[in-house]
Amino acid sequence: MIRLYVAADLAQGVALALDQGQSHYLVSVMRRAVGDEVLVFNGRDGEWRTTIEVLGKRGVIVRPTAQERPQAIGPDVDLVVALVKRARVETIAEKAAELGARRVRLVITERTNPERTRIDRLSAIAAEAAEQTGRLDVPQIFEPVKLSRLIEEWEPPRRLLFCDEAGDAKPVLDALAGAAPAPWAILIGPEGGFSPAERETLRNLPYATPATLGPRILRADTAAISALTLWQAARGDWREGDWRGLEVS
Amino acid sequence: MIRLYVAADLAQGVALALDQGQSHYLVSVMRRAVGDEVLVFNGRDGEWRTTIEVLGKRGVIVRPTAQERPQAIGPDVDLVVALVKRARVETIAEKAAELGARRVRLVITERTNPERTRIDRLSAIAAEAAEQTGRLDVPQIFEPVKLSRLIEEWEPPRRLLFCDEAGDAKPVLDALAGAAPAPWAILIGPEGGFSPAERETLRNLPYATPATLGPRILRADTAAISALTLWQAARGDWREGDWRGLEVS
Repeated sequence: MIRLYVAADLAQGVALALDQGQSHYLVSVMRRAVGDEVLVFNGRDGEWRTTIEVLGKRGVIVRPTAQERPQAIGPDVDLVVALVKRARVETIAEKAAELGARRVRLVITERTNPERTRIDRLSAIAAEAAEQTGRLDVPQIFEPVKLSRLIEEWEPPRRLLFCDEAGDAKPVLDALAGAAPAPWAILIGPEGGFSPAERETLRNLPYATPATLGPRILRADTAAISALTLWQAARGDWREGDWRGLEVS
Repeated sequence: MIRLYVAADLAQGVALALDQGQSHYLVSVMRRAVGDEVLVFNGRDGEWRTTIEVLGKRGVIVRPTAQERPQAIGPDVDLVVALVKRARVETIAEKAAELGARRVRLVITERTNPERTRIDRLSAIAAEAAEQTGRLDVPQIFEPVKLSRLIEEWEPPRRLLFCDEAGDAKPVLDALAGAAPAPWAILIGPEGGFSPAERETLRNLPYATPATLGPRILRADTAAISALTLWQAARGDWREGDWRGLEVS
């Protein structure tokens, strides 16, 4: 069944209007009709089964009929990634949603080229991926900040998996073995790597764990997907039993 | 330094002509001149440092001056992936090269839509990714075959990590704990999943290990990247020490 992310509150019997894009998608792309059902979620009220009530010129109106799943949220892991080229940042937004990141933070490092980012567009990509992947929230995407500022404003209970391509760190699974549970963040550098001064700073952060992603050079999007995968497998909700939907916000 | 994959044999002092695309890239894009150095590899003779000798109308000629690295090859792991939409197959070819897959096999399953594939284009994408990622070979990409034929022709010492979205299998890291070393293959289904009959067949193969990739639905390209990452981390050359460049062909 089609799943849509909406902004409105969701409650039994309270009709809501879908936005123009979603209305167009339902009617013109997916050929849905009055009486058809659609799942909706908003990141707060769980997933609701709704029925299409109006297919008007002003858009589609749906009415929630039953809550399918109560609200649940994955483990608290952020993806912090250097601002790379637009196509790769867009891939990262999509994959962060599929792989259960809670937030995506873009950082400007010494070797980052200034790229224009449209947070609204990245958020739309993340929302669409969240719809398809079955999660009940959408990762929040933040405006780019300088790495130095990100570090200044760090909230220390959160640990940082620093993906360090320089090579003397442990592999991610070894680095995470026995490590603290969430909250965590995963840091992926730009394709030219971190500067020596940045590496020194990052290595000295008391909350940082350096780790390598194997013997080959990875593009930033690949590194982000690989690191999130390993984190979820070792510390997150890809482990057996313990995490699946248990953490209710 | 720029790295290029070439078809020709490589030996000390034996000049070779680069193809048109590579010549254009060196001269017009990267503005290289006579006397500049370029690294080349062919998957057989290791990585060679070469010097640009001629920048002519017919292309660039380089002469190998020193072998930088002897030939080495990563662990023997194939990525077997259902034929999905072209853009996602292209992503998979790129990422398979970065993540050290030795071969990419495309399969046609019951729920696969017929898509045209251009193996030459996919191979060019894989070669370019191999140049950037630093490996000394390029994954071989095979024409699509039916899943039933792939199974008929299976060579049994090779094990199969069957990524099964149906949910009752173990997580990949648990499934791979203590498992046999390479050769392995990783199987990723189409976005509509395998049919019940296909799942039954796959689960009953004596060389297959079913495993899940977490609680969210992943697109085929994400699943391929995640599964290869976990395989490399658990059984391949992302482990500490033992694999890095040791297996010389």
